[in-house]
Amino acid sequence: MFHATDVILKKRAGQELTDEEIITFIQKFTSGHIPDYQVAALAMAIYFQGMTRRETVVLTQAMAESGQMLDLSDITDYAVDKHSSGGVGDKTTLVVLPLVAACGVPVAKMSGRGLGFSGGTLDKLEAIRGYRVALSEAEFRQQAREIGIVLCGQTGELAPADGKLYALRDVTGTIESIPLIAASIMSKKLAAGARGIVLDVKYGSGAFMKTLEEARELAQVMVKIGVDAGRDMIALLSNMNQPLGRMVGNALEVREAVETLGGAGTQDLRQHCIETAAYMLSLAGRGQRWTDHAENCALIEARLADGSGLAAFRRLVQAQGGDVAMIDDVNLLPRAAQQVEVLAQAEGYASFVDAVMVAKAALVLGAGREKKGDAIDPAVGVEVAVKVGDTVRVGQPLAVIHANNSALIDEAKALIQQAVTVRSEPVEPMALFAGVIDGRTL
Amino acid sequence: MFHATDVILKKRAGQELTDEEIITFIQKFTSGHIPDYQVAALAMAIYFQGMTRRETVVLTQAMAESGQMLDLSDITDYAVDKHSSGGVGDKTTLVVLPLVAACGVPVAKMSGRGLGFSGGTLDKLEAIRGYRVALSEAEFRQQAREIGIVLCGQTGELAPADGKLYALRDVTGTIESIPLIAASIMSKKLAAGARGIVLDVKYGSGAFMKTLEEARELAQVMVKIGVDAGRDMIALLSNMNQPLGRMVGNALEVREAVETLGGAGTQDLRQHCIETAAYMLSLAGRGQRWTDHAENCALIEARLADGSGLAAFRRLVQAQGGDVAMIDDVNLLPRAAQQVEVLAQAEGYASFVDAVMVAKAALVLGAGREKKGDAIDPAVGVEVAVKVGDTVRVGQPLAVIHANNSALIDEAKALIQQAVTVRSEPVEPMALFAGVIDGRTL
Repeated sequence: MFHATDVILKKRAGQELTDEEIITFIQKFTSGHIPDYQVAALAMAIYFQGMTRRETVVLTQAMAESGQMLDLSDITDYAVDKHSSGGVGDKTTLVVLPLVAACGVPVAKMSGRGLGFSGGTLDKLEAIRGYRVALSEAEFRQQAREIGIVLCGQTGELAPADGKLYALRDVTGTIESIPLIAASIMSKKLAAGARGIVLDVKYGSGAFMKTLEEARELAQVMVKIGVDAGRDMIALLSNMNQPLGRMVGNALEVREAVETLGGAGTQDLRQHCIETAAYMLSLAGRGQRWTDHAENCALIEARLADGSGLAAFRRLVQAQGGDVAMIDDVNLLPRAAQQVEVLAQAEGYASFVDAVMVAKAALVLGAGREKKGDAIDPAVGVEVAVKVGDTVRVGQPLAVIHANNSALIDEAKALIQQAVTVRSEPVEPMALFAGVIDGRTL
Repeated sequence: MFHATDVILKKRAGQELTDEEIITFIQKFTSGHIPDYQVAALAMAIYFQGMTRRETVVLTQAMAESGQMLDLSDITDYAVDKHSSGGVGDKTTLVVLPLVAACGVPVAKMSGRGLGFSGGTLDKLEAIRGYRVALSEAEFRQQAREIGIVLCGQTGELAPADGKLYALRDVTGTIESIPLIAASIMSKKLAAGARGIVLDVKYGSGAFMKTLEEARELAQVMVKIGVDAGRDMIALLSNMNQPLGRMVGNALEVREAVETLGGAGTQDLRQHCIETAAYMLSLAGRGQRWTDHAENCALIEARLADGSGLAAFRRLVQAQGGDVAMIDDVNLLPRAAQQVEVLAQAEGYASFVDAVMVAKAALVLGAGREKKGDAIDPAVGVEVAVKVGDTVRVGQPLAVIHANNSALIDEAKALIQQAVTVRSEPVEPMALFAGVIDGRTL
């Protein structure tokens, strides 16, 4: 006989739960037969006592199987997916997916909305007039088969147990648990049906994981979950201390993605996208082709140079009802009423461009949500003009604020001034990546 | 602005909560403005991180003040109370209160029902035909003033936050936290209005606290809470490895209490009651009188010898509508249909009479409740015939089972056989007390 309290007490004592205990707990929670207060108590016990690899894998599978498990075999016999743990100015999905599709690898991805600093991928796409993020499953499959690229919201209920558990963790102080975070992310990825998954796990001021050590631990746990669930896994550990690229804000990030696909854009964003796409190719090659990382990078760079990546993005936008004129001329994307420069007050070298402060400025301007359901202004945001290591002269612009409400400009300006630290001694540029965990060679 | 999640996160991190955070949390929980799942998460965080003395005191006061705070100054200018942490065969309240009243100290006590092994004090009193445990507050005060002794259920809602929190802890695996246990017990005691409180904190197989160390820690925390709340406190640490006295069961325990008040009864129960009553006298003396423990014990023994303790109990029963004929002749108390002896199968010395197994036997027979609201059979129970250290001969009765359902007898018998361990080497009798914590000299 299953007693939820026994499971709580067992975990509280630091003991390992059985598969049956975990599966039954998740099933009864999803069906509403275990009250929230017992789940909250268990989550807090897990926060303190942790979970073994086996427990975490079973939890993830149970959450994945709480709803629909997508089968993408009618689209491709080997689907690849990517997931970013979220960061400031992270528009990589908009660049990486078209580049991979341009290599002939179908990419059919479901993405989410943002909570916090700026919008999620769906929010960014909705800055393009007419872009439909809500597709039926039939539309999703048809588009993937026809043009090899689709990027939309969830078509069905993937891992509903995760949605329910995350909402409860959010209000019970039980978010910061590595096994619970890993199970949350991976349950949705497993349900989404990809056989190869590249994880972009970020660390630093603008990331959920503040230290490299935490990010590495999370990445390792997620890779292990995926491997144990029969998926091919690669995790990149990437630096999120300064914003990625130069734009933070929804239309601004679409603009930057289009520019990057056109061969322009900042070096860090470009490099980040090339590496991520190259690893997706590597998975898609399944050891038969695309086995050399440097060659994969060169292949992806060619897709930037020949415009085929940008063409794939244009096809995607067109297929989902978006106004391609906005892609052909990014000046047609939503634009804020005011552009205000924030000028440097000191001379020297930028030693820190704090991603979290830039993100707060974007949030203040209306680019993000403080709570679920808040409206987002697609036009506003921050364009950051300096990277760590850059020389800075007094009076040079550190950033441009894109605002629709002039009352908010002063606060955003102050946040940008706080974000940028200038030192008199030269400073090394920040590394983009701190490591790669390849689940195929673990 | 108060955010419940911030309080949970703070405690999760092992930080000390402010008075305001604790008080607001309890107030909002009591008024239904903090959901159970946040309280469950906080309770689990407290389980792992503990609470400082100050936090525990503030929590206790906040729970006490969540309902009515009784003022007993119209009854006496210094009310004394006692509390037992609960044990097997613990009928001490029925003996101690009359003895203290017989010394001229008014005792006006509210007691509870039992959950688990056997009934609580109210369940025991209800074995006396007609005894009214439910008094109005006016009746409670009038009887206390007129005859100096009253023993009933709660007249109003004392510490409702405690009731609510305890029910939640019970189903979220968060019972076993010393600060939460201490706050639960002491919040009701503080609300009940006594200025001097004797705590009987039990340890061992039949107690909530299994080890002396845990019991000592709980006792110390409770004494400190009381002292900080301006009460005079004494805590006794008493052994609950074997049942106290010889009867376990409701009418059986009333019978034993009456016999003990009449000067008979087992030595352990008699001594336990004398000590407890003597400490209550000591508190009531407030340093002006009754300052010598040995003299207080002698004074109480005289109340046993001269029958004035029994007379006080008779007055109590009469005042609350009970049938005093049952006190004058205990054979009139409810009697089970069958009395079955459990005989010794080995010879030697009783090395253990496991209180928890005896309690289970009583529970099987119907003397206790498995869950709130279960009916209790007042007549059934177990009469234990051996104490640790006694010599045992084959065929001698170890216990007498009092049953109303013959189908339950075999199970009860087996439990009693398991309860009693007989060794060939002589065994020392068990000590009754393991220490006294006097809050006046801390």
